[in-house]
Amino acid sequence: MQNLEDLCVHTIRTLSMDAVQKANSGHPGMPMGMADAAFVLFTKHLNFNPQNPSWFNRDRFILSAGHGSMLLYSLLHLTGYDLSLDDIKSFRQWGSITPGHPEVGHTPGVETTTGPLGQGFANGVGFAIAEAHLAAMFNTPEHAIVDHYTYAIVSDGDLMEGVSHEAASMAGHLKLGKLVYLYDDNKISIDGATDLAFTEDVLRRFEAYGWHVQRVDGHNRTEIDRAIEHAKRVLDKPSLISCRTHIGYGSPNKQDSASSHGSPLGSEEIRLTKKNYGWDPHHEFYIPEEVKTWFSQYLEKGNKLESTWKSVLKEYQNVQPKRAEEFERIVQGKLPNNWSKSIPVFEADTKGMATRKASGLVLNAIASNISNLLGGSADLAGSNNTWIDDASVFQAGTYQGRNFHFGVREHAMGSALNGMALHGGIIPYGGTFLVFSDYCRPAIRIAALSNIPSIFIFTHDSIGLGEDGPTHQPVEHLAALRSIPNCHVWRPCDANETAASWVATMERKDGPTLLILTRQNVPTLNVTKDHSNVLKGGYILSKERGNQPDAIIMSTGSEVHIALDAQHELQEKGIDARVVSMPCIEVFRKQENHYKESVIPSSVTNRVVIEAASAFGWHEWVGQHGSIIAIDGFGASAPFEKIYLEYGLTSEAVVSAVMNKKN
Amino acid sequence: MQNLEDLCVHTIRTLSMDAVQKANSGHPGMPMGMADAAFVLFTKHLNFNPQNPSWFNRDRFILSAGHGSMLLYSLLHLTGYDLSLDDIKSFRQWGSITPGHPEVGHTPGVETTTGPLGQGFANGVGFAIAEAHLAAMFNTPEHAIVDHYTYAIVSDGDLMEGVSHEAASMAGHLKLGKLVYLYDDNKISIDGATDLAFTEDVLRRFEAYGWHVQRVDGHNRTEIDRAIEHAKRVLDKPSLISCRTHIGYGSPNKQDSASSHGSPLGSEEIRLTKKNYGWDPHHEFYIPEEVKTWFSQYLEKGNKLESTWKSVLKEYQNVQPKRAEEFERIVQGKLPNNWSKSIPVFEADTKGMATRKASGLVLNAIASNISNLLGGSADLAGSNNTWIDDASVFQAGTYQGRNFHFGVREHAMGSALNGMALHGGIIPYGGTFLVFSDYCRPAIRIAALSNIPSIFIFTHDSIGLGEDGPTHQPVEHLAALRSIPNCHVWRPCDANETAASWVATMERKDGPTLLILTRQNVPTLNVTKDHSNVLKGGYILSKERGNQPDAIIMSTGSEVHIALDAQHELQEKGIDARVVSMPCIEVFRKQENHYKESVIPSSVTNRVVIEAASAFGWHEWVGQHGSIIAIDGFGASAPFEKIYLEYGLTSEAVVSAVMNKKN
Repeated sequence: MQNLEDLCVHTIRTLSMDAVQKANSGHPGMPMGMADAAFVLFTKHLNFNPQNPSWFNRDRFILSAGHGSMLLYSLLHLTGYDLSLDDIKSFRQWGSITPGHPEVGHTPGVETTTGPLGQGFANGVGFAIAEAHLAAMFNTPEHAIVDHYTYAIVSDGDLMEGVSHEAASMAGHLKLGKLVYLYDDNKISIDGATDLAFTEDVLRRFEAYGWHVQRVDGHNRTEIDRAIEHAKRVLDKPSLISCRTHIGYGSPNKQDSASSHGSPLGSEEIRLTKKNYGWDPHHEFYIPEEVKTWFSQYLEKGNKLESTWKSVLKEYQNVQPKRAEEFERIVQGKLPNNWSKSIPVFEADTKGMATRKASGLVLNAIASNISNLLGGSADLAGSNNTWIDDASVFQAGTYQGRNFHFGVREHAMGSALNGMALHGGIIPYGGTFLVFSDYCRPAIRIAALSNIPSIFIFTHDSIGLGEDGPTHQPVEHLAALRSIPNCHVWRPCDANETAASWVATMERKDGPTLLILTRQNVPTLNVTKDHSNVLKGGYILSKERGNQPDAIIMSTGSEVHIALDAQHELQEKGIDARVVSMPCIEVFRKQENHYKESVIPSSVTNRVVIEAASAFGWHEWVGQHGSIIAIDGFGASAPFEKIYLEYGLTSEAVVSAVMNKKN
Repeated sequence: MQNLEDLCVHTIRTLSMDAVQKANSGHPGMPMGMADAAFVLFTKHLNFNPQNPSWFNRDRFILSAGHGSMLLYSLLHLTGYDLSLDDIKSFRQWGSITPGHPEVGHTPGVETTTGPLGQGFANGVGFAIAEAHLAAMFNTPEHAIVDHYTYAIVSDGDLMEGVSHEAASMAGHLKLGKLVYLYDDNKISIDGATDLAFTEDVLRRFEAYGWHVQRVDGHNRTEIDRAIEHAKRVLDKPSLISCRTHIGYGSPNKQDSASSHGSPLGSEEIRLTKKNYGWDPHHEFYIPEEVKTWFSQYLEKGNKLESTWKSVLKEYQNVQPKRAEEFERIVQGKLPNNWSKSIPVFEADTKGMATRKASGLVLNAIASNISNLLGGSADLAGSNNTWIDDASVFQAGTYQGRNFHFGVREHAMGSALNGMALHGGIIPYGGTFLVFSDYCRPAIRIAALSNIPSIFIFTHDSIGLGEDGPTHQPVEHLAALRSIPNCHVWRPCDANETAASWVATMERKDGPTLLILTRQNVPTLNVTKDHSNVLKGGYILSKERGNQPDAIIMSTGSEVHIALDAQHELQEKGIDARVVSMPCIEVFRKQENHYKESVIPSSVTNRVVIEAASAFGWHEWVGQHGSIIAIDGFGASAPFEKIYLEYGLTSEAVVSAVMNKKN
């Protein structure tokens, strides 16, 4: 008879093989190869409670190599999460909780959405940042109420992706010692042997980042156990354990071959493999009784872990009642009462203020009331106005700091924000120039897909940034970001709309918010002081004089004041126009029809949009008789006033468009 | 008196300081810090001919740290390029050839567009790939007609960006020995000291990639010279020379400070700095006569270099007439005669074929006639159908290969394609899943901005990929890519439209083309065999029966056959609809109005679009009475037929939309 551990590990393997075969799609080789290492991690190291997957102090586990999802689903099932054998049999089917790649919020025990390579790696850095920060904020010498590790399994593909480099460099710099990653060094990627493309010395690279590195036989469970134990004790460096594994382990014809990577093994090969494991080749989705019995201990163990923690928390509540109350608030993801009370109201002013500057002032006002709002910039803190003045810097040794230096690493910043938000307990933001939203776009997508409320502050939002030229001037970015489902893109027109945008941002729980801000000054208006309209995403900023407008001028951000000028000029010509400000199209789109109709009546077909960006997407609002004054092509390097003029983004152009309505 | 070299270097510095000051924006510190290294490189190593910036065998120089553009402009002016002192005085002004960041095609001597950090680094890898390939293809033991180095100046920011990691790992793997990069190790980034965020051991990291590394004092010109000399002799490894420099060198109050990074020094500080250099502090844009005289040698030197090469080429033409003819063709960027002759015509077939498969067949047919078409995939060659069957693999030692293993490095792939295309002589393509176009989006943007004809093959283009689920299913990507100016996005509906898309792709010279292809089979049609209509980007695929359609159904790609089914079903109900295929909206938009009107007559307001993607952007074509059958939200993990059904992407939905036209 096999020993019990072998039986357990083979159960993970056979469940994975069978599920992929039944779905007729998926990746069996990785779960088969990493079963030993994952088994050791889950059964000997990972602290979790299957009955409460959201227990706050659990260790976080990330399967960055998300294509090996069956490895995770098998372990979640065996250890007692609410994920049944039927769920495993429904792998990759409509309505199942076992999709092709793990999705957070969809499946108990899944901490983050993975599949797009490198994302999980960088999310984990965010988890470790959150843990380090909360530990520094709340723990006392007597009571460690935040004290957990963040583990991940990462693949060759993860390590080839640029985002993992950025995140690894950041983690090494920050000395995030409670980060322990297992690298599945199986020497095989989809195209074949990894050495077709990937021959770098991975461990040496990670040493250069300041990581602690080890190398083990990925099928020697004693070695793996010892290495994880060692990694946990190295508290001043993140750890990478390279596990030399065999993809498709035990498959007589497909082990160590790309053919086991992304396709079912085939029923004949599955039978041969099961035989090789010493299993009955005809059993499918089979879990030996002794395996079931053995794994059942993790229910009790999980309960025990959580109750022990709860009693520590109880003690903490007794001796640190105020901090405990704050802790409870942040764990529940609630905002403090009156959190918005210090948000400034900006007085009307023609000279005005850049919305990035207003954002910095509002951010500081909010941060003074919300202790767990923290973030930074990708090396543009002064330009993005992301600095919290009365907070210190998050660095190794000062994890209580709330200001981050993410470095010139927009992608890792975005993915780390996602990890920080998913961890819970903190509200993270990150800033860069809008044009570089392209660099972190994969992270924005995951935030939108997984309902993660990460906050992105994108400044220098158009040709309005001037001399830096077309490489730095966003044109298509507004359209590209507005096209992402579940993304809220706020482009406020002045300091007060900026304040309202921040209110909307803080109140959002189910997806990312992007604040799109100007470099240059824009006039501050009076009417925007009342947030209630702004929060609808689109509203009548300046009404026509009569009962029914002759035309509607729509605009966002820095072009709204041009729209107002045009309204004035049109009035002088006897044309009675309305100006609609549309700071967030996505929120406006969700308003009830009668409200939208009241703002943009269908009877008024003379409509003009002005926005210093691509026209793409605006036809939805102007209709076929309307005009869009926008940018066709890329920007130019010059003082911004000159570019506006040369590109025809002027009130004269709006007036002319209104007067020359298309038929 | 100062020695002449010091005078030269200070001239570079003072021109840079003065230009930034006059523009009242820009980055003086980097040019001041790297002036010594750049001077050594340009005057002692770089082979170029200022009178012919496009001389094919010149060394390529890339200022990856594009914000230091004045360093490059100063050197271009001094060495005799067609860039006058007045141009330098117009730095960052409207219409000048000296924009804020270098732009290829805009300024003689600028090899690639930089500014977005990391791009230049990765472009350079593409240049070196192109050089290595062409050398392997054309050189003989007697005649080296392609034989040059690729140099770059890279910054901390470049090395923090993920794309540089991907590109460095790739270059090390490929042993691109003729790549020599100077790293401006000035310890300062915009936010302050680099050690706020960046403390990795850079040289150790590059050693891990397989690079040759050296460290020099960046102000010791002898050391720099020796290191470059050494790097040039290491032919089996790319080289990184870390130059310890002082940003804002010589500025009494701003050297080694972030204050010299991104703002003018101020006129008082400029005077103090000039004094420090031993210069007359009142001279502006001053070039000492002896400096002018000394630099003038580079005109003659450049001419000589090119004529020597020309005589080698002449000999080569004599002894290798056929290869010389081919060389001339590829240098001129011409396609061979009859290049398209082997493109297959696909017979109508209901079962059909995935467009990715058709693309692979067409690619192979074209590649058999165009020897300089080459490329690969980011570890998905089999899925992207990017393999050229009768060609070998591009690896160290087999640089004549035309199949690339880019690894899981979409971003470096994209940026390397741009470098390969800019180098000239080859036509590069790269493939990945459409959802991962987000990972290489910054490279696509640069290609569009700089008119680079890189080819991107994006397969698995919708929920049609099925079980992999929402992480892998593009939804917003079509809109996001269509919003980029100068990008051609082709989404063919069948095998023949795929062939036509490839024809359009090969004929495009002034920007990137993206081929968007299905994973799943789509029916092959008859009418698509005639490419002439397809090449207009949008056309009547199936005409109404009468003289005027009751409705127009527009579609692209895998939904076109659903549109055809709907047309049929509507006919049975007595509704006479037209089906318009829109494989490339950007090309259709450029057609003359009368053609567009003939395809989509404005009188027909009952219009329906069906596309398995976000509706964003389609209102331009359906108008306000039309409907868009699209995807609201993200995808799901299940067999694709099921998802289409559940998401309502069906002919029934089209029929119902036509019959329930909005008013």
